[in-house]
Amino acid sequence: MQYPNNIKKDFTKLSISHSNRGMNLENELNLSNEYYLKKDIALIYKKPTPIGVVDVSYSNHKKTIEKAYFKEPSTLDYNGLYRGKYIEFDAKETLSKTSFPLSNIHVHQTTQIRNVIKHGGIVFLIIRMNNLTYLLTGEDYINYIDTEKRKSISYSYIQNKAYIIKNSYQPQLDYLKIVDEIYFKGE
Amino acid sequence: MQYPNNIKKDFTKLSISHSNRGMNLENELNLSNEYYLKKDIALIYKKPTPIGVVDVSYSNHKKTIEKAYFKEPSTLDYNGLYRGKYIEFDAKETLSKTSFPLSNIHVHQTTQIRNVIKHGGIVFLIIRMNNLTYLLTGEDYINYIDTEKRKSISYSYIQNKAYIIKNSYQPQLDYLKIVDEIYFKGE
Repeated sequence: MQYPNNIKKDFTKLSISHSNRGMNLENELNLSNEYYLKKDIALIYKKPTPIGVVDVSYSNHKKTIEKAYFKEPSTLDYNGLYRGKYIEFDAKETLSKTSFPLSNIHVHQTTQIRNVIKHGGIVFLIIRMNNLTYLLTGEDYINYIDTEKRKSISYSYIQNKAYIIKNSYQPQLDYLKIVDEIYFKGE
Repeated sequence: MQYPNNIKKDFTKLSISHSNRGMNLENELNLSNEYYLKKDIALIYKKPTPIGVVDVSYSNHKKTIEKAYFKEPSTLDYNGLYRGKYIEFDAKETLSKTSFPLSNIHVHQTTQIRNVIKHGGIVFLIIRMNNLTYLLTGEDYINYIDTEKRKSISYSYIQNKAYIIKNSYQPQLDYLKIVDEIYFKGE
């Protein structure tokens, strides 16, 4: 089958843009976390993706994984310690302009968000959408899914409830500034 | 070469015992953490081992890792949230009866222990040695390595400073009982 030239181009552009954007948010967060670590501001790490190892080999006392598969995470991707507090979050982005699909968040992760709130930790989502980066608190996320029972979060809810994280020079994505405003107000 | 029967037996027994013990401590901790989670006592997870993926394949939209290697961890293996506090620890065991070799702890992990203390988190090592399970606080660990400049921690220091975690029915290794005694005394 032959695609008209313009459709093919758009499709290619879309996939590249999508993967770039995915890489960018994660990279920006990793660089920001390195900055926080270096400046002794916070200890926040991305958890390694959980895998199930099927097969390993040994040569020169070095263990190499020969086959493995990705497992579903039970927690959010990032966690650590900031100003004496436990902090946990996940970073997601969508190309949709009107709503954030909840299929991005696994059932176990929603349970984890509820649990972190219950046990007194700080928990939130970083959502990149419409070229903006938002911080949505765990509380506002849970409140939405418990009230609305939809398969996605409307963009208007995000615009209304979430905080915009501005891009800066160093750190690239200073989300802890927003964390200060929300969770350490007046301290 | 023919080994006398009793030596061969002892050797076999030792290796089995070693691998069992390694499995046991980690298993006991994982089961204890599942118990704490189920009973809504704490949210503590073992971090996945960090890997570097070299090669992947795709079939039926399923991504399989075809080659990867293990990376050195920057943090301790377990972390989470307990009574509103950040908690991080590692679990190690040694067959040595007289000292705990510091080669068990990576340089980055020692840095991480210092950092968690500085940022107000709870951090410790669980050490299994001479058939007993000890909790050594991060503070006592750092104090020893800064003062003694040795390649191992003497067993007498562990006996003197660390707290014994008793095996019980459920959870199998109730280390949070010791955490309560040390970090939440009088609360």
